[in-house]
Amino acid sequence: MKVHDLPTPALLVDITAFDHNVATMAARWPGQTLRPHVKAFKSTALAARLAAQGHTAFCCATVREMVGMADAGLGDDLLLANESLDLHRLTPAIRAGAARITVAVDSEATIAAAVAAGVAEVLIDVEVGLPRGGCDPSDAGRLADLARADGLTVRGVMGYEGHLMREPGDSKAQLVERSMALLLDAHAVVGGDVVSGGGTGTWDTNTWVTELQAGSYCLMDTEYAPHAPAFAQALFVNTTVISISAKGWAVLDAGLKAFGMDHGDPTAVEVGPIWFVSDEHITVGIPEGSPVRVGDRVRVIPAHVDPTVSQHERLHLIDGDEVLEEWDVDLRGW
Amino acid sequence: MKVHDLPTPALLVDITAFDHNVATMAARWPGQTLRPHVKAFKSTALAARLAAQGHTAFCCATVREMVGMADAGLGDDLLLANESLDLHRLTPAIRAGAARITVAVDSEATIAAAVAAGVAEVLIDVEVGLPRGGCDPSDAGRLADLARADGLTVRGVMGYEGHLMREPGDSKAQLVERSMALLLDAHAVVGGDVVSGGGTGTWDTNTWVTELQAGSYCLMDTEYAPHAPAFAQALFVNTTVISISAKGWAVLDAGLKAFGMDHGDPTAVEVGPIWFVSDEHITVGIPEGSPVRVGDRVRVIPAHVDPTVSQHERLHLIDGDEVLEEWDVDLRGW
Repeated sequence: MKVHDLPTPALLVDITAFDHNVATMAARWPGQTLRPHVKAFKSTALAARLAAQGHTAFCCATVREMVGMADAGLGDDLLLANESLDLHRLTPAIRAGAARITVAVDSEATIAAAVAAGVAEVLIDVEVGLPRGGCDPSDAGRLADLARADGLTVRGVMGYEGHLMREPGDSKAQLVERSMALLLDAHAVVGGDVVSGGGTGTWDTNTWVTELQAGSYCLMDTEYAPHAPAFAQALFVNTTVISISAKGWAVLDAGLKAFGMDHGDPTAVEVGPIWFVSDEHITVGIPEGSPVRVGDRVRVIPAHVDPTVSQHERLHLIDGDEVLEEWDVDLRGW
Repeated sequence: MKVHDLPTPALLVDITAFDHNVATMAARWPGQTLRPHVKAFKSTALAARLAAQGHTAFCCATVREMVGMADAGLGDDLLLANESLDLHRLTPAIRAGAARITVAVDSEATIAAAVAAGVAEVLIDVEVGLPRGGCDPSDAGRLADLARADGLTVRGVMGYEGHLMREPGDSKAQLVERSMALLLDAHAVVGGDVVSGGGTGTWDTNTWVTELQAGSYCLMDTEYAPHAPAFAQALFVNTTVISISAKGWAVLDAGLKAFGMDHGDPTAVEVGPIWFVSDEHITVGIPEGSPVRVGDRVRVIPAHVDPTVSQHERLHLIDGDEVLEEWDVDLRGW
């Protein structure tokens, strides 16, 4: 099938950029030292491609992602890198021995939820500067003791320095070091083999974790691009021009329901600038004499990869004009 | 089932507010004078509820919505209020006589697409001030002639004054009148019975159309609230508190993948303020001594209804703590 034959809007993954990104990351974080974050692409087909490269440990943000990965036979080492009180859906996979399941905990309540669901292994989630999940570093030892007293194996710690992903390069290294010092202090008290953290924005800065939690690097977006320039833009939304006005604009058939909008407007390739985005449309300005015609295809680069992919049913792996594979975005929802 | 038993995040529809909204709109725009816009809720179950109130004509933004409505037996009078070159998916429903299908056209290319798909009826889409789809008003007559010459029935015109939905009340009436004057001028040349337009923001201002295209009024959001105060907030995202920091914040388990973010952050009910929204989280500030506990449910009001609903698999109709019905969001995608 040709790219032009795909109904639009359609998510495209350029194989050259994708393979470059996977190889670049694997050179620095080979095998299970990388724990690809499934939340960025929500596709077991894409995950299987990473597993084939040796990355057989994954992390997830939702219980549904965990269950879907286990069901797809990608359960060698699954980490729920998030707090949840709704873990009972993991129990069947645990009982069936279908997956090695580890969950993050940061409170007595989340430890109790892990125990109740039959989860055997946990990481203590430590807050390292991002005001989100994670216990205070000073509380990590107490929680580890509590988890062990409840029969859980504590594999180590995790801490996500998400507030530093977009720091300028010259200050990033120092700030990441300070943030990771909190995590290492907690690890010294907690014990275990695992120090998990990091992301696409700190892939070459964070030298302290034993495993990196990166996902966006596979596909990339305009927001991450300046902060992780080693990776190429692999993800595009293919659109069709459905209307043109002689007053100087064209209308594309993809809108708010096809893009994550929290980082602002996406970027149209070859036409533009984008004037505004509606539910099912992008209005782009076109100069007088523009060759753009109704029916033309226009590629648009998302500003934020994760909430873009999650709005689509599938990804299309392409090589030039050829569609090579269709990957279901089968881990959507919760 | 109780609301507390629903896994989170979960979309809730308060039946009291919903019924109020439907009744309020129906009092002004009864029966087929209202053409509810399916794009706002993407659910045939919700649409069936409107049809039961006499609103048996609908408009859609995507071909998938059109096909889904026809398949669900809601095809009395379906308008694709949008340009598309990908209309062949409508052909089976047309051939089966399963639906009355009308599509908007604004160019020679879209007329040709309608003819090729076997569509019998069209509206001439007229640009009335919003830089998006629609022909120049001065071109409407030529396109109507062209459509008729191609064997199509031209039912009339449509024109969406979307740029005026959020105008202040005192200037809105005059601006809508001016915008609709363009549409009526085009209608005088085009002919036909239908003058279709308007939306939730102009439901009580636009007295010129023969049918109103409103959808958001059913569920509402914080962006529309000040511009259509007759309607009550019926839509909430139910979340769970999964983490609390003694430094003064709590973490909810719904994020960018559960909310349309183009109108900014949603609004948490009873806790707050929202500090920021991540892929799967909302961080809210909580005052010292707050009674909020891990496991609590917190309702969050979306800032934009359409791209919020489209990210969920179902809506839950609730009455107090009781879940009355589950409505699949079965018209997602394209």
